[in-house]
Amino acid sequence: MKLSILLLVILMTASCQIKQLTAEHTLISSSKNINVGDWQISSSDYAFNTAAWSIRKYSLHGGLQEGVEIIEIDNGEMLIKVIPTRGMNVMSVESKDVTLGWDSPVQEIVNPRNVNLNYNGGLGWLDSFNEWMVRCGIEYSGHPGDYNGRLMTLHGRIAHIPASEVKVFIDPLPPHQITVSGLIQEKWFKGANFEIETSLCTVPGSKTLKFHDKITNKASHEKEFQILYHANFAKELLEKGSELHGTIKSVQPFNDFALKTIDKYHVYDAPGSVEPGGEKVYQIIPFADKEGKAHFILENAQKNKAVAFSYDIDTLPYFTQWKNEDSLENGYVTGLEPGNSFPANRSHERKQGRIPKIKGGETIEYHLEYTILSTQNAIQKAKEKISKLNAGKEVKVDKNPEH
Amino acid sequence: MKLSILLLVILMTASCQIKQLTAEHTLISSSKNINVGDWQISSSDYAFNTAAWSIRKYSLHGGLQEGVEIIEIDNGEMLIKVIPTRGMNVMSVESKDVTLGWDSPVQEIVNPRNVNLNYNGGLGWLDSFNEWMVRCGIEYSGHPGDYNGRLMTLHGRIAHIPASEVKVFIDPLPPHQITVSGLIQEKWFKGANFEIETSLCTVPGSKTLKFHDKITNKASHEKEFQILYHANFAKELLEKGSELHGTIKSVQPFNDFALKTIDKYHVYDAPGSVEPGGEKVYQIIPFADKEGKAHFILENAQKNKAVAFSYDIDTLPYFTQWKNEDSLENGYVTGLEPGNSFPANRSHERKQGRIPKIKGGETIEYHLEYTILSTQNAIQKAKEKISKLNAGKEVKVDKNPEH
Amino acid sequence: MKLSILLLVILMTASCQIKQLTAEHTLISSSKNINVGDWQISSSDYAFNTAAWSIRKYSLHGGLQEGVEIIEIDNGEMLIKVIPTRGMNVMSVESKDVTLGWDSPVQEIVNPRNVNLNYNGGLGWLDSFNEWMVRCGIEYSGHPGDYNGRLMTLHGRIAHIPASEVKVFIDPLPPHQITVSGLIQEKWFKGANFEIETSLCTVPGSKTLKFHDKITNKASHEKEFQILYHANFAKELLEKGSELHGTIKSVQPFNDFALKTIDKYHVYDAPGSVEPGGEKVYQIIPFADKEGKAHFILENAQKNKAVAFSYDIDTLPYFTQWKNEDSLENGYVTGLEPGNSFPANRSHERKQGRIPKIKGGETIEYHLEYTILSTQNAIQKAKEKISKLNAGKEVKVDKNPEH
Repeated sequence: MKLSILLLVILMTASCQIKQLTAEHTLISSSKNINVGDWQISSSDYAFNTAAWSIRKYSLHGGLQEGVEIIEIDNGEMLIKVIPTRGMNVMSVESKDVTLGWDSPVQEIVNPRNVNLNYNGGLGWLDSFNEWMVRCGIEYSGHPGDYNGRLMTLHGRIAHIPASEVKVFIDPLPPHQITVSGLIQEKWFKGANFEIETSLCTVPGSKTLKFHDKITNKASHEKEFQILYHANFAKELLEKGSELHGTIKSVQPFNDFALKTIDKYHVYDAPGSVEPGGEKVYQIIPFADKEGKAHFILENAQKNKAVAFSYDIDTLPYFTQWKNEDSLENGYVTGLEPGNSFPANRSHERKQGRIPKIKGGETIEYHLEYTILSTQNAIQKAKEKISKLNAGKEVKVDKNPEH
Repeated sequence: MKLSILLLVILMTASCQIKQLTAEHTLISSSKNINVGDWQISSSDYAFNTAAWSIRKYSLHGGLQEGVEIIEIDNGEMLIKVIPTRGMNVMSVESKDVTLGWDSPVQEIVNPRNVNLNYNGGLGWLDSFNEWMVRCGIEYSGHPGDYNGRLMTLHGRIAHIPASEVKVFIDPLPPHQITVSGLIQEKWFKGANFEIETSLCTVPGSKTLKFHDKITNKASHEKEFQILYHANFAKELLEKGSELHGTIKSVQPFNDFALKTIDKYHVYDAPGSVEPGGEKVYQIIPFADKEGKAHFILENAQKNKAVAFSYDIDTLPYFTQWKNEDSLENGYVTGLEPGNSFPANRSHERKQGRIPKIKGGETIEYHLEYTILSTQNAIQKAKEKISKLNAGKEVKVDKNPEH
Repeated sequence: MKLSILLLVILMTASCQIKQLTAEHTLISSSKNINVGDWQISSSDYAFNTAAWSIRKYSLHGGLQEGVEIIEIDNGEMLIKVIPTRGMNVMSVESKDVTLGWDSPVQEIVNPRNVNLNYNGGLGWLDSFNEWMVRCGIEYSGHPGDYNGRLMTLHGRIAHIPASEVKVFIDPLPPHQITVSGLIQEKWFKGANFEIETSLCTVPGSKTLKFHDKITNKASHEKEFQILYHANFAKELLEKGSELHGTIKSVQPFNDFALKTIDKYHVYDAPGSVEPGGEKVYQIIPFADKEGKAHFILENAQKNKAVAFSYDIDTLPYFTQWKNEDSLENGYVTGLEPGNSFPANRSHERKQGRIPKIKGGETIEYHLEYTILSTQNAIQKAKEKISKLNAGKEVKVDKNPEH
């Protein structure tokens, strides 16, 4: 008995690890033909000693969001809105002081059935772009472009595929981690045959959430694939003087426009400081700590609100910084985007040797962790960690725009 | 007290004006996450002295119309079918003697989720074209065409966007006007950022309905935009010998085919008098009365059934007459279409100086009014009004097709 | 009385013939605004002396299949899954020993609202390709291609149009045949104006099902049209050594790849015996028996499991054999496809004189019949029938690939 508990604790150290004993709730299942509809549980349903938490599933109404389903996790400190209808994307993470998310001109959480990725020359993805965390991929990602008569649309299809299997797990062992998992299938006959099993987990009362995703190529043969975690920040974190810190090896401007301000790539300007449509993109190569993780912090100007995040660099070697310092009305936002390629079209990325392959039957895993920091102390500590990793190193600035 | 009532009466003179005191019912709201589902009210719910009226909301089933919502207003004289799911378009207005509407080959009221505007080279809009009143626009309208690698599809997107906020208002003051309003959002990140607040109003027992729309550019910068009120008539009004009268300054054929019969542009031929697909389009410039309104009448051959309509010309300076004298099976119909441009592709209209701009944050208003006439007397009177306005004027016929 | 019964019996001999006296259940109707939702009947609701049978209608949940409706007919020997949401296609026919159907990489029964036929250069149809029986057409079918700026997408639109009118009929006279009918409308203003009234019928306790379809051109003028019955087999029937027998006049390879193995076109290889994506297509011209029917059998290697099918050849003169001997993961399958053309793009088929026309108002009928055979005896008998028809004839092998 003791041994098995020990084993469980060991298993638990990996992020979002699900154990056999864990209480499991199936909310959606296409294999079992289940959709529970409106649903909720809370800490009062369990005899665990944790901060009060609750999870509920409900549907959206009106306009283009009619029929979208939301899973809202209140862990006592953060309110996390997961969207199973949109590939388990996360709309926002709200805490008392800091929100992960932004204000897009698109306000409704758009039902994928209303989105045509082919619109506007393959920019249809922008019709529904307003989430904090949008996964891009898997057959392709990046800017739209033609490939043998096929239009590879902006950032691929995974964000617009409703999850097939959605489960909630409550860990019976302290700290009673909450996990929401969703399986998304990106498949077409003679084409993509990918499954991505996403997990998002958080401990009651904490300001940390983790993603643990597994991409599997279900085809019998090797395929190219792309994955980009398009995480978008504004709200309390983005303003004139906000700053990005990270374990950065090198930075390169995407184009001439980005080159102009490359010396200040890590510092943000006020809303509306660029022309409408103007955006600066930087291609960053991070380095990892001993555990294989890259570390980043985005802090506000006052340095009292921040988000810190880290992730496994081996499967996500490229980091795109997208600075969209447009007006508030047009969507002031920065994307901080770990990926297995940069966001140019697949054909370009392939030429640069940045499109990896996945064997038939192979599974590749992804680990990312985000923590909200709302005190100067906490931010200072987190920055010191990055400073130590950066000690003796210098960011290599490549002043040749790739495009 | 007296003063405030006076003020209300003054406010009421503007079409579809909503007053604070008005009883308001929210039927759909994406901001409040509301959809009331099946719903109804009627004059028996109020102590007002009016013709008996009722309003009900219900859903459609079967085929491509599954899930479409309808708001049906019976004002005692007219049955008006508004389609919130399709941008507050109006399917038909039925009275005892005259119907505003037509018989398209497409019979179901097609759910936009089943429509791909990109189909058939950007003609997908025709997959669901069967309403009496279809709004076209707002980012673009007109015939399909390429614009910098983007396909501008036929007549734009606004007709295929479900309304976000839908309300019904019953005026507590005589004549107890009924108003149905709907907010439609045409938005995409880095692209369109338009809202159109539509209102349709009618007085119980009347044969008049009014539209009062407000288009707002929610972006921070100026944009081009287009709006076309694609109103389509057949049923009891269109036949061999039907005639269009109006305060017309000039008329020009769209193409050589329309040129052939330009001398009879205002008179209609029998169903099937053109080859399948044949259609005649005339570009008309109307003039306005002292109140800024253009006036038109479409009457049947016997001159005992007609529709009269008028609208503010300053924001809708162009009027397209579309004569589709095809067989009944193929959709015998005429479109009488006030717009802020003609229906060629945006690039062409731009060259002709017919694409207006709207500033960031600006709102532009539209007023249109339609009255069903079912006696020779009423029609005679309405035509006299137009005759007086036309006195001493002559329609300038430009015999050079623009295309 | 006797006479009318006699008349009924005579009418009944035609496949899926519906008689006035037949008990009729309306499940879906857009003209009457009906969708009964979950529904079922069974033999216990009738006092008939038949094998126990049941029919139920239910909805699918999860992923891309959310909202799809299924009509499941259990006739006592076969479980037939009809999909009204997908043009009355048939997902599978399951009996004790033999299943008509296959395992596509696409596992969910995809809701057409989630399918964009324009994706991947007009290959969007492959996003949901997994049914046993998929109708292709009606405005066009075959491989994607441009036609005057319009993209004719793979295999047309009819498989992705939800049925408008769906009824179930139980014949009051022995053998109490069960019929499920569905009307599908493929219509767009100035374009297609087709209706297809499909009927599927089966007798309780039998292993035979029949299709009786009627295509009507509702336009007032003549149109080209295409129809292909894309029936797909794998499961217990397809393996190394499976064989196709038929009343075959001639066979021609589609391309050079198919030419290589043309001498064995009728014999199947093991899963994965071709490279991923490799497929062999043969263009077959069948001949008919005295009743105008072509006959085919697909049998497994052991020759103890088979499907026999026959159909009226006058309206379906071409037969496509599609051998997709890819891996099981990638979708090992053969399509045996009666059609009124071969599966190249419409423009090519037109040049070959293989695109028929249908007059305005004309109706054309289609009859197909499938029987599951699960004993060596039954298979032997069925093959003898074909052998007799083939006696003295030889298959003409044309070794010039058409493409």
